[in-house]
Amino acid sequence: MPQLRKDPIVNRWVIIATERARRPAAFIDPPSTATAQQDCPFCQDASRQAIYTQGDVRVVKSGTPILDVNKPFDRKKHGLYDVCYSHGHHELVIETSTHTANMADLSAAQIQDVFDTYALRMSEHRKDPAVHYVLAYKNYGVAAGSRNIGHARSQIMAVPVLPMRVKEKIDGAKKYFDYHERCVFCDLLDQELQSRERIVAQNEGFVALTPFAPRFPFETWIVPKRHHCDFSKGIEGQSVLLAQLMKDILLRFKIGLNDPSYNYMIQTSPIEHGHLMDHRYPSISDDYHWHIELIPRLTRVAGFERGSGFYICPIPPEMSAAFLREVIV
Amino acid sequence: MPQLRKDPIVNRWVIIATERARRPAAFIDPPSTATAQQDCPFCQDASRQAIYTQGDVRVVKSGTPILDVNKPFDRKKHGLYDVCYSHGHHELVIETSTHTANMADLSAAQIQDVFDTYALRMSEHRKDPAVHYVLAYKNYGVAAGSRNIGHARSQIMAVPVLPMRVKEKIDGAKKYFDYHERCVFCDLLDQELQSRERIVAQNEGFVALTPFAPRFPFETWIVPKRHHCDFSKGIEGQSVLLAQLMKDILLRFKIGLNDPSYNYMIQTSPIEHGHLMDHRYPSISDDYHWHIELIPRLTRVAGFERGSGFYICPIPPEMSAAFLREVIV
Repeated sequence: MPQLRKDPIVNRWVIIATERARRPAAFIDPPSTATAQQDCPFCQDASRQAIYTQGDVRVVKSGTPILDVNKPFDRKKHGLYDVCYSHGHHELVIETSTHTANMADLSAAQIQDVFDTYALRMSEHRKDPAVHYVLAYKNYGVAAGSRNIGHARSQIMAVPVLPMRVKEKIDGAKKYFDYHERCVFCDLLDQELQSRERIVAQNEGFVALTPFAPRFPFETWIVPKRHHCDFSKGIEGQSVLLAQLMKDILLRFKIGLNDPSYNYMIQTSPIEHGHLMDHRYPSISDDYHWHIELIPRLTRVAGFERGSGFYICPIPPEMSAAFLREVIV
Repeated sequence: MPQLRKDPIVNRWVIIATERARRPAAFIDPPSTATAQQDCPFCQDASRQAIYTQGDVRVVKSGTPILDVNKPFDRKKHGLYDVCYSHGHHELVIETSTHTANMADLSAAQIQDVFDTYALRMSEHRKDPAVHYVLAYKNYGVAAGSRNIGHARSQIMAVPVLPMRVKEKIDGAKKYFDYHERCVFCDLLDQELQSRERIVAQNEGFVALTPFAPRFPFETWIVPKRHHCDFSKGIEGQSVLLAQLMKDILLRFKIGLNDPSYNYMIQTSPIEHGHLMDHRYPSISDDYHWHIELIPRLTRVAGFERGSGFYICPIPPEMSAAFLREVIV
């Protein structure tokens, strides 16, 4: 049974795979051969029942779920450690029925269906009283942690604890709000739209920019102009604009950076229902602002970053933004 | 001039390379060809003056310094952002005069010289009143973020701010101490030495164990049995024991995991001199306990981890420890 374990020093939760644990020897030569198209599980797997479909998008249960809805959230101590069983939901969003690898090559309408699907599934998972956060994310390419199957897909994980990085962002935004009585993301957008040096592209609804203090080369954020803490509610009526800008940025990555591996992660607010309400975040609707982080995977994180959380970005974000702006889409 | 920039939301400092910034095109096909032995800069470079030597170990200034002692620590606001110039020290520790790639293949006596050198240089950097933390770390192999030069070396970075991950550990250990009036690492060692299921190896001075909530497969910590917050003082009279256990663990990685890339990072206490004294950490000498993190680089960090800081470890640490214990060194 997979476990959630908490580091007793920094309070970081970690999921320990057990049922799908790899044998030690499996790490020695990690498999990296591409799956042949005729063996693509997402083209063929009609047997796996869809939880939800929208247009050409299908949501299925993960074949190797890290989290399981049937397991109770049972948090226990183990000496000085904390452990709980991994209650939650783990779904795969198969973004197209055709064998297309990169979301950049889907139509904006198809990408809109994918984001509308995230919104709907995330709202659904919010109803589970044991779920504290829902993360929707994509791993594209081997360097981004994906198997080389060649079929566009992304994942939704609904977890019973508030992940550490999410908490840091929420806490940071809250501190800024407490002092200024303004949202840090709204202020940041205002400043960025004035200086323009880190803007990659924008439309009426969204801005794509490279952050002032990026961790990675070409790290890009897509930030909605309309303030909302929650992704599912925030994109209401705006998902067509989001899809257009996502496609634009993913094409800039593909053309400008030679089809790199990448990750994106939707950064939305935590769930604040009933007994899991966290009273430290009463004003979350004012002080947090959902957004998407996109990270092309062009460099390796080295010991300095791992040991300190202090990143060295080998290219200034102004240069990354100028480069991406000039890519002809 | 390289800059330190602070993320305005999570307060993470990032170093932006400018003088050694890579052109955008340089990311498209990152260089990965091995340097030929006859071109090894660490075999030949007699022109670069040693700052310090001990036995066969030489310390030189980094050829591409990220931090510069001649630049003042000049912290400024830039709209809602924080920026400062990158005052600090960046040194390279060349661990041997012979062309040997992996520290595992050095003698224990040579490894002892390397760790004694770290201790001495770290003490030296503590005297700079603008330095707030000193990190000594190694990147071995391309997957660990190192260039493929084939000559064992490690790095020392003395930085003017307290890095985020370090602060989290210090804060976490302090919270535990405040409640229990005991060091969390001492308690953890006690529990681990009783259960033994996560112990890889030990000697009179040090224990090598896989942590209860690891981020990575085969992640290993080396923890001193004698409580001390500071690495430089903590290894006094014990560096021979540390070197023996380091060599033992690095050989287990090399033999058991087929010479993987790896990082190690010394996790020591921050510097608390004069005007940089941080009054939140008055009892740091009681509540923090220096140690070393070793991470073989066998998997890629994917979008879930990047987006949430919530790691999925594909093998339980008990299985990693059992595997490493059984490697015949």
